[in-house]
Amino acid sequence: MDSIEDSPLYRIANPGSIAFFGASNSFASMGTSCLSSLLSMGYEGRVYPVHPSEETVQGLSAFASVEEIPEVPDLAIFVLPTKIVCEALEQCGKKGIRHAIVVTAGFREVGGEGHERERELVEVADRYGIRFLGPNCIGVTNPHVKLNTTFMESPARPGYVGLASQSGSFVTQLFDYLDARALGFSAAFSVGNAANVDLVDCMEYLGRCPNTKVIGLYIEGIARGRAFVEAARRITPRKPVVALYVGGSETGKRAGMSHTGTMAGPDRLYDGIFRQSGIVRAHTLTELFDFCWVLGGLPGPAGNRVVVQTHSGGPGATAADSCGRAGLEVPPLTETTLSRLAEYIPHTGSKNNPVDITFSKNPQDYFSAVPEILAGDANADMFMSYYLVPDNMVKRPLMRMGVPEEEAGRKAAEWLVQQADALAGIMKKVGKPFVGYTYRDLWECFPSEMVKRGIPMFSDPDRAARALAAMVRYMRMADRIDGQDGAAAKQDQQVGEAAS
Amino acid sequence: MDSIEDSPLYRIANPGSIAFFGASNSFASMGTSCLSSLLSMGYEGRVYPVHPSEETVQGLSAFASVEEIPEVPDLAIFVLPTKIVCEALEQCGKKGIRHAIVVTAGFREVGGEGHERERELVEVADRYGIRFLGPNCIGVTNPHVKLNTTFMESPARPGYVGLASQSGSFVTQLFDYLDARALGFSAAFSVGNAANVDLVDCMEYLGRCPNTKVIGLYIEGIARGRAFVEAARRITPRKPVVALYVGGSETGKRAGMSHTGTMAGPDRLYDGIFRQSGIVRAHTLTELFDFCWVLGGLPGPAGNRVVVQTHSGGPGATAADSCGRAGLEVPPLTETTLSRLAEYIPHTGSKNNPVDITFSKNPQDYFSAVPEILAGDANADMFMSYYLVPDNMVKRPLMRMGVPEEEAGRKAAEWLVQQADALAGIMKKVGKPFVGYTYRDLWECFPSEMVKRGIPMFSDPDRAARALAAMVRYMRMADRIDGQDGAAAKQDQQVGEAAS
Repeated sequence: MDSIEDSPLYRIANPGSIAFFGASNSFASMGTSCLSSLLSMGYEGRVYPVHPSEETVQGLSAFASVEEIPEVPDLAIFVLPTKIVCEALEQCGKKGIRHAIVVTAGFREVGGEGHERERELVEVADRYGIRFLGPNCIGVTNPHVKLNTTFMESPARPGYVGLASQSGSFVTQLFDYLDARALGFSAAFSVGNAANVDLVDCMEYLGRCPNTKVIGLYIEGIARGRAFVEAARRITPRKPVVALYVGGSETGKRAGMSHTGTMAGPDRLYDGIFRQSGIVRAHTLTELFDFCWVLGGLPGPAGNRVVVQTHSGGPGATAADSCGRAGLEVPPLTETTLSRLAEYIPHTGSKNNPVDITFSKNPQDYFSAVPEILAGDANADMFMSYYLVPDNMVKRPLMRMGVPEEEAGRKAAEWLVQQADALAGIMKKVGKPFVGYTYRDLWECFPSEMVKRGIPMFSDPDRAARALAAMVRYMRMADRIDGQDGAAAKQDQQVGEAAS
Repeated sequence: MDSIEDSPLYRIANPGSIAFFGASNSFASMGTSCLSSLLSMGYEGRVYPVHPSEETVQGLSAFASVEEIPEVPDLAIFVLPTKIVCEALEQCGKKGIRHAIVVTAGFREVGGEGHERERELVEVADRYGIRFLGPNCIGVTNPHVKLNTTFMESPARPGYVGLASQSGSFVTQLFDYLDARALGFSAAFSVGNAANVDLVDCMEYLGRCPNTKVIGLYIEGIARGRAFVEAARRITPRKPVVALYVGGSETGKRAGMSHTGTMAGPDRLYDGIFRQSGIVRAHTLTELFDFCWVLGGLPGPAGNRVVVQTHSGGPGATAADSCGRAGLEVPPLTETTLSRLAEYIPHTGSKNNPVDITFSKNPQDYFSAVPEILAGDANADMFMSYYLVPDNMVKRPLMRMGVPEEEAGRKAAEWLVQQADALAGIMKKVGKPFVGYTYRDLWECFPSEMVKRGIPMFSDPDRAARALAAMVRYMRMADRIDGQDGAAAKQDQQVGEAAS
């Protein structure tokens, strides 16, 4: 596969027209919710509901059969009862449709005759050359073309995280989670039982997708191990891949089996696969997205040395502790830095790394002069800083000075936006990974302004440290694979030349 | 110490009157902020600002010297420049004041002559029999008597978490953090350099404090190791203690030393101390408060077996994976449970634990019938459930049925509150630990209503699983210590009887 358009997923994620099976005007059904979220996101292609009796469905002209649709749609979506999916797929095949999403469940994952039903589905597809996502999946989201086939209505913003998931929940149920981090999907695929299109296909699509800066995988079990490793090794030297694998523990294994019918393997086996593939492993869903956040949004670090800025001891000590546990160094600062810092740090503070400002005479120093000095330190590969900036901390002193509440609120917000701007400017200038942490809510003015400017903010220094360590791990693995595969390619070439 | 009133901290946390040094009418100073937050919380005792020139400070009559105050205050608080603290303490001693908080920094933690200054402070205190918190601390919060001597204004709610911290930040900077969990401090002490009153004193006070159901410790280093272990062993069999120690890693160690001047020790040493003491160790601040949340708020589990309820596979599989890694079992359910579940679970769901409902015909079954069956299972010691209930998920379908937006919002909220009530009722009836997890914001209607009813909600199943595992660890340690010390006490008694 050389072009993204050769991927079986290209038309699934970028359809010009859709035949939709299973939506009606009854608001209780799953199919209705899926069509409704497709329309509410403002999808700009043509949509043809197929319904046996209704003349219109959700305001669109409906068709009694797919045959009657006045064009050959790029994609068919099925949210039908299990027993009639195969027949509907067959009709689509006859019509000339070559791509489908089978949302319907009740196949291999339920065991027994579900296996037979899935085999039949695959046979029909093969007969017509149809490539399909599912069954037992939730579909696809591609906010860049306003496509959301999942049942969850959302103004999902376009972003840089490409997701391929063996759980549909993690495609649909995280829009809000990502939003709090100003993140969005470039495209997200729920592969379900992966009867025809699988994780490897998704990874290859996302590897070539120009909107995707980082690929996240949620894995309960890999069927094509060798293809997975080969595809990953082609991608990881130039685009990071993060994987959450949950089939490892005995309990996770049982849950994974019952869910999509994929056999999970021993945890260590998967550890090896990921290492060999250059994939960064996450252990929780929180880590999966934390790692995607920094790997997709920040420049790569040159090494593992972190400089930490705080204005109180506890947050500094916990950050240093977390860095240490994550395998990061918190090195002493250079003499140059120490002398430049002198004027900003009172005698109760500390110029040891973590640097503890305690108190700034000019509060904005904390957001500009000091981070500029620290992030620029020659011993620092990465910068991490603590923030405690509730809106009221700026607003209340203004009110005490006699500024009316509304104006104080506006001025406080302006000041906080200025500080976030200053920090974003420093991040850009310095070109090193830059993360913040706070024990405050991410929705507050300052953290949300930071996040909007691409500076990740974490609710615990431990998460920040693990995210930075994931970047270091990625850089090392990517270098190694690039070196190995580059050398192997060169050797192949020499062998080829010698033989010719 | 038999009574809480014998504790040196009793008058510090429950003063009837306070002499306040260092507040003025200038709004920029730290002392002014401290007095302001004391007053804004509505402290009901008498407050006497001491100020060399002002007649009133923040609306209170000020006194040129402590001598002129018309009574002997229970407590003196110092937010003065370092050089004049000793003299002020001496004057308080002469006046007869016997308890103090020294917020002022610049003592042992800055090294050099700071050591000498701290020695002098201790000498003055000893001469007059004064017990004091600090120096280099942030003071105390006791919301039960509306006392907040820290610089951070807050309507901190009374709660059950007692905190003793070698970081002031973790006393002041977490009010909002706790609030999101409907948690509050019973009392929180910032010990600073602990020159006179230390962590052991705090732990003993909190052990006897009737408002404290769980004790949290933030530790950078323990000075009185033996006293610490002895005090902890007296407390832990009947009241859980959770400790976050950050001096362990090399980097954390350096940060800890520079912060309060306490020497940190090897991580393993502290691991041993905690185990010996029956203390549950946390590794991050998030864990410290997660563990306090469940240990203070939920009944103790009889064993380590968890039943998990979800309505989608991914959240179930991640929960099972996290439980497995945390050392919890996710056992098969009893036959009774399986047959009772039958009517609630469609064929696409799973009755394996994690139980995956997929879809409920009656949405309220997820919040009442099903959890009641699962939590009551004889194989389950604990119950954990996934929730995806954005307000809009309930409100939008109502609007599609033609209900006007405002009414739909109100009805949605009513319905969500009913579900939280049902769950709280089940939790109470079943008497087992009960936690929820969600990838949604804790401030949304449903999670916040759950939290208000004492059901912890976590943003990742991993946090939920670790919190439950902390409870299991606590139960085992408490039993062990109770057994050992009980046996030792009995032996002592027998030896005593034999000798007499």
